[in-house]
Formats: sequence, structure tokens, C-alpha cells
Amino acid sequence: MEPADRAAKMTALFGRAPLPGHLGMSLRFDDDLRAVIDLPHAAFLDHGLGQVHGGIFATLIDTAAWFTAAVHYDTWISTIDFGVRLLEPVEAEDLTAVGSVVRLGKRIATADAEIRTAAGRLVAVGGATFANTSVRFT
Amino acid sequence: MEPADRAAKMTALFGRAPLPGHLGMSLRFDDDLRAVIDLPHAAFLDHGLGQVHGGIFATLIDTAAWFTAAVHYDTWISTIDFGVRLLEPVEAEDLTAVGSVVRLGKRIATADAEIRTAAGRLVAVGGATFANTSVRFT
Amino acid sequence: MEPADRAAKMTALFGRAPLPGHLGMSLRFDDDLRAVIDLPHAAFLDHGLGQVHGGIFATLIDTAAWFTAAVHYDTWISTIDFGVRLLEPVEAEDLTAVGSVVRLGKRIATADAEIRTAAGRLVAVGGATFANTSVRFT
Amino acid sequence: MEPADRAAKMTALFGRAPLPGHLGMSLRFDDDLRAVIDLPHAAFLDHGLGQVHGGIFATLIDTAAWFTAAVHYDTWISTIDFGVRLLEPVEAEDLTAVGSVVRLGKRIATADAEIRTAAGRLVAVGGATFANTSVRFT
Repeated sequence: MEPADRAAKMTALFGRAPLPGHLGMSLRFDDDLRAVIDLPHAAFLDHGLGQVHGGIFATLIDTAAWFTAAVHYDTWISTIDFGVRLLEPVEAEDLTAVGSVVRLGKRIATADAEIRTAAGRLVAVGGATFANTSVRFT
Repeated sequence: MEPADRAAKMTALFGRAPLPGHLGMSLRFDDDLRAVIDLPHAAFLDHGLGQVHGGIFATLIDTAAWFTAAVHYDTWISTIDFGVRLLEPVEAEDLTAVGSVVRLGKRIATADAEIRTAAGRLVAVGGATFANTSVRFT
Repeated sequence: MEPADRAAKMTALFGRAPLPGHLGMSLRFDDDLRAVIDLPHAAFLDHGLGQVHGGIFATLIDTAAWFTAAVHYDTWISTIDFGVRLLEPVEAEDLTAVGSVVRLGKRIATADAEIRTAAGRLVAVGGATFANTSVRFT
Repeated sequence: MEPADRAAKMTALFGRAPLPGHLGMSLRFDDDLRAVIDLPHAAFLDHGLGQVHGGIFATLIDTAAWFTAAVHYDTWISTIDFGVRLLEPVEAEDLTAVGSVVRLGKRIATADAEIRTAAGRLVAVGGATFANTSVRFT
């Protein structure tokens, strides 16, 4: 399958994924086939002190890294582990996460992601490791 | 402030936190003052293949670790970083995350958390590091 | 192969491993088949301010976690990633790292490890993820 | 203090650090003030199967990230935690680690590092988080 076809397939998969939609995320791929996740701010994304909850940063990192790696495989990849570093708090700002490939192996893939506010402020970074499976996308 | 009073204060803080409530999480402290987060399954928690999204595990780990550490401080602690290892996929099962203290320092705190299904199956583990701030709870 | 036989094989493998020997580490397995790594302090283990270097903690975590997981497999496992949290500085104290299994899967294994001083002080914790390979031990 | 002066001070500090010297590491700063650590291969760096030990990658990541961040502070920074992803095995190849700043905060700093072989092959990546202290360099 060509990368552009896989990107279309990935976008369709994202469209069927309940959680990202529930949180208000949208997905596109940039010219380098990196996943870009946009998340407009909403009050329900916050923790008890009125800033975006760490779990939202983690969800963005996981999602951007996963799609950035997954678009290069014809089989399903499953997340083994991931980590997030929270750099600055965010209050009521829209967020964009962008993934980047670190290494695409036959069995293991790894990708990074960073999150910026609409103003371009870097607020979180992270990375994830994935295991390739034999489950083909349909 | 006594630990039991802080636990009550923390539970109130959790009650005001938008995201955990939005996802359906509830908080209690066990006899060892460890935060226990319950999350009944709901379809919107899933990724595109019908299993619980990695971001949910991360949110549970972050939340359980944070409250388990925070209940020991009179000041606000902010998450610096955290990591999650996803051990087994989860389909339509209720989840419970339990935190455990690793170290409570004057400036830095660190805690772990694990997630089990209602049947007791261990499905994810993680840990988080927090910086103590000078912001007092009110 | 029986666990006790594998432990003997692992100990022999450790004996042939250049770096652990070079640093002064020794390996044994406790009754629960957890790898225990002892490292007597030596001046060359320190960083520029006279405390044990973070890389030594990482080497201990990686080694204790690896042997604790590897003893359960007949094939070689390779480290995918690992993380270390440094809790307290150490000056001129002997160290002991002990591993613990988190999950032993068919393809992926994960284990934790903690490091204590001879006096029992907890100074570092960490975890590692391993991929199982098809290379058999000989 | 000017960055160039701090770089000179850092290089002197590195020269006094026992472990890096013991392992054969050398430090320089590139034009962007990023720490570059060179490590020629030696047999004692290997694990039992004749490849470079994971602890060496961790030590390189920790060291490159630490100096890349530390050169921007007049006070000592201490490593809170760090993680390493091992991408490819290395047999008898010289290694070079290069750090990069992620964020330099007043209290918390974070930096990444990557490790390549002399041939330019990317073999490991990682990141570290540091707490700033009030201890001034002398």
C-alpha cells in the first residue's frame, strides 16, 4: 500500500475511534507524513486547578506518536509504553501535537511527539514504543 | 493538617476536576492513604479497534499517582513527567487504578500506580514525578 | 529447563559479561528467583561531585531487571527501553539492586528494579521493557 | 558567567569526574553549546553476548543531556529521572552522544540526547529531567 493510501486509511480509523472524537481531537498528516493532532480547548479537559489535565497531554502524545508510526505499517502496531514530560501549564489554549519517527523496525517501532499551543509555545514532549503485530488493517 | 483532613480536601478537589468527572472516574483513599480511582467502562473510552485507549491508562496512572503523593503535602504538587507501560489490552472491562508512594521529598515527590480490571487482571503500570510548589491549598 | 538450571546458566552468563565485572558487580538469585546485584563502592563509580554517577544506577536497574525477566525464558530477551528515577544521592556506600517481574509475555516482558544502600536506604527505582527473540541460550 | 566560560568550567568538571574517564569518555561542546560525548569502543563495555551494555547507553544519555542542560546554569543541577530507548545493538563500534535542550526552567530543566555510531547509525535516544539546586559551581 502507498503511504498516501495508508494515510487515508489511518484517517478513517481515527474517525471511528471513540475517545479522540469524544475529546474533540482531529487528525491530519503533514507533507512528511507526520500525524498532526489538533485539540481545541474545552473546559472538561482541565484538572481541578483550571489547567489542562496531564492525561490529555498523554493522550495527545500517544495518539500523535502512534499514527506517525502506524502509517508506515500494513499491520496493526500496539503501544508497549510511553512517557510524557510536562514542560509548562496550559490554561484555556488550543493544542496541537505533532509526531516524529525515531525508528521503524520490523518488530519494534518508536516515535516521539511534541505539543504546542496555538501560539507556538512548547508545553509537552514524549515518546512511545510500539510492537508490530500480525493483524492486518482491513 | 492531618492526613484524614487532607484526604477529605483532596476528595473535594477531585470532585471539582472536570476531566476525571467527564471520563467517569471516582476517587477514594484506602486505609494506607493510597488513592484508588475507579473507572467504569464506557464506549467512548476506546480507540479505533474497540479496546480502551492508551490515553485513558495514562490518565488513570497520572491521577492515582498524583493524589497518592499530593495527600501528603500542604502545598500543590505539579507533575513533571510520567510513564506508562501497557501490559494487556482491555475490552469493555471496568478499571481500578491504585497509587503507591515511592518517595516524598521536600522538593520532589515520586509515586507509582497500577491498573487492574474488575477481575483483578494487571493491565498497566506506571510512575510519575512531581515538583512541590509553594502554592497552598485553600 | 527448570528455573534453578536457568539461574545457574544466567549466573554463568553474568560471569562472562565484561561490563558488570569491570564495575565490580556480582549476581545472585534470591528464593523468589529475583536477580540481586551487589556493587561495592569504588571511587571510579562517581561523578564530578563525589557521588555515584547516574549511569551506574541505570546499569544496576537494567541488569537487575534483565536477569529477573530473562531467567524465565529459554530464549534471549533484548532491552527495548528502560527508565530510572534517582531518589537520593549516594556517597561512598555499597549498593544492592533487586529486580521484580511485572509481566512475562510471549513477546514482551517487563520488570522493575530498586536500588538500596547497604543501610537499606532506597536510592533509585526503575523499570525496563524487553522483547523476546528467537535466539536460544547455549 | 558567559556560556563560553561555563563550557570551559564544565569541561574541567568533566575532567575531574571519575566514571566517564574510567569508561573512556571525552566531552566537548559544539557551536550550539550542545554537549558531545565520544566513547571509543573497548571490550569491557560489552554485555555477555558481545554487544555494548545498555548501561553504557544510559550513561552516555545521562551525561550528554546533563552537560547540555548544566552549561546554561550557574548552579548545580541534579538528575531526577531519565529514560533510554535502545534502537539497535552495537558491536565494537565507537559511539558519540549529543545532547539537545528541551526546556530550561528556573527550577526544572529537561534535555534529550541521541547516540550514533561512528558510521552515523542512530542506536539509542533518551531524555532526562533535572532539578536546579542552590549549590553554586566553584
